[in-house]
Amino acid sequence: MQVENLTIEGRNAVLEAFRSGKTIDKLFLLDGCQDGPIRSIFRESKKHDTLVKFVSRERLDQMSETGKHQGVIAYAAAYTYSTVEDILENARKKGEDPFIFLLDGIEDPHNLGAIIRTANLAGAHGVIIPKNRAAGLTGTVAKSSAGALNYTPVAKVTNLTTVMEELKKKGLWFVCADMGGETMYRLNLKGPIGVVIGNEGDGVSRLVRQNCDMIASIPMKGDIDSLNASVAAGVLAYEIVRQRMGS
Amino acid sequence: MQVENLTIEGRNAVLEAFRSGKTIDKLFLLDGCQDGPIRSIFRESKKHDTLVKFVSRERLDQMSETGKHQGVIAYAAAYTYSTVEDILENARKKGEDPFIFLLDGIEDPHNLGAIIRTANLAGAHGVIIPKNRAAGLTGTVAKSSAGALNYTPVAKVTNLTTVMEELKKKGLWFVCADMGGETMYRLNLKGPIGVVIGNEGDGVSRLVRQNCDMIASIPMKGDIDSLNASVAAGVLAYEIVRQRMGS
Repeated sequence: MQVENLTIEGRNAVLEAFRSGKTIDKLFLLDGCQDGPIRSIFRESKKHDTLVKFVSRERLDQMSETGKHQGVIAYAAAYTYSTVEDILENARKKGEDPFIFLLDGIEDPHNLGAIIRTANLAGAHGVIIPKNRAAGLTGTVAKSSAGALNYTPVAKVTNLTTVMEELKKKGLWFVCADMGGETMYRLNLKGPIGVVIGNEGDGVSRLVRQNCDMIASIPMKGDIDSLNASVAAGVLAYEIVRQRMGS
Repeated sequence: MQVENLTIEGRNAVLEAFRSGKTIDKLFLLDGCQDGPIRSIFRESKKHDTLVKFVSRERLDQMSETGKHQGVIAYAAAYTYSTVEDILENARKKGEDPFIFLLDGIEDPHNLGAIIRTANLAGAHGVIIPKNRAAGLTGTVAKSSAGALNYTPVAKVTNLTTVMEELKKKGLWFVCADMGGETMYRLNLKGPIGVVIGNEGDGVSRLVRQNCDMIASIPMKGDIDSLNASVAAGVLAYEIVRQRMGS
């Protein structure tokens, strides 16, 4: 897995990044700017389904590290993304039932890194994250993952529910950690499985929850509402590990 | 639980803080300064067993928020500490076997906060942290605990192993998460128990490990070494919850 520059500035550099196949997480364009090169960059961003934000010159000046952004700044992924197919192939190669993490909008890069670390150690075959409203694979995530990002494939997808439907056709069951479900110890979490972890503040989104086959409830014996997202992911993942080990 | 100022500067303010019973986490004194008021402050710090550092004037100037430190700066706890006895009393009041977290040098305030949050939700009666080489109860910890610090007592002790010996006399068993132990699912983790979580980088220290009755190993099926400390705490704590529930 290849480390890339995090910020790319200037028209040629950004255009080149797109054309060389670099994964651009986010593209910032000067609002109202419509000349040729900017339009070319915008076309490339459409082709690659990149998230584009139109911002003021002041904002670009603030973000710029070089002072020479020429109206365009791109955030590239620190690590290369895999595909959902890569993750399934990873399971096939190991001769195991697929065990996949789906993160429904984890925003804190430390949480994302810790969850990728957990996914690696729990023996999961990969992590799927959504394109929008979620942390991407930045340097902070790589660091928090304690090296797991070099081993555990992470795929970024446009629509989590579409991917869930496709994976269900391939035999996966989905379980999300949420309130109001069955205590996780009483669920059967063996077999091909996708574990869904919701956003830090809002939990699992409605559509994703509707697409889950099981709602797992982690016993809460205290005074506050919920565990930290990466702790919840660890607790649920290791209940799956326990059941798979037959303990 | 009461929120306090984090930094106290100047001779009278610091002396007053000691005399009013505020918990001072750390005291910084100007190196070589031996006049009356400084000696009084130093005596108070001995009485309260406070950690004292002798530092240069440049260092104090850097740390100072007011610019008027007069050779003395104190860091007060953001929250009031409880005692080990408070924690045992908390268990007694609930009519439950004590379930206590011992943190052997957690340095990252986000981890400390997440662990206090987990302790609350797993139904633990309190958290014990050491005085040295560990994060104290700062504002960041309070925030990361998501409110749990208002419910779960945290005691700060000079020597973890001494406290472990005292608690053993009261019937507690200690289990630490470390490599080379028995898989946690095969251990009997019911009854009065203390869960020991080691430092982020170095794990559980030698003396503390020797004082543990059981070494619990969390199954590691991946390529990297260890889980994030707060995730490991969550996974082990919830194995205890599972066994206590009889699941």
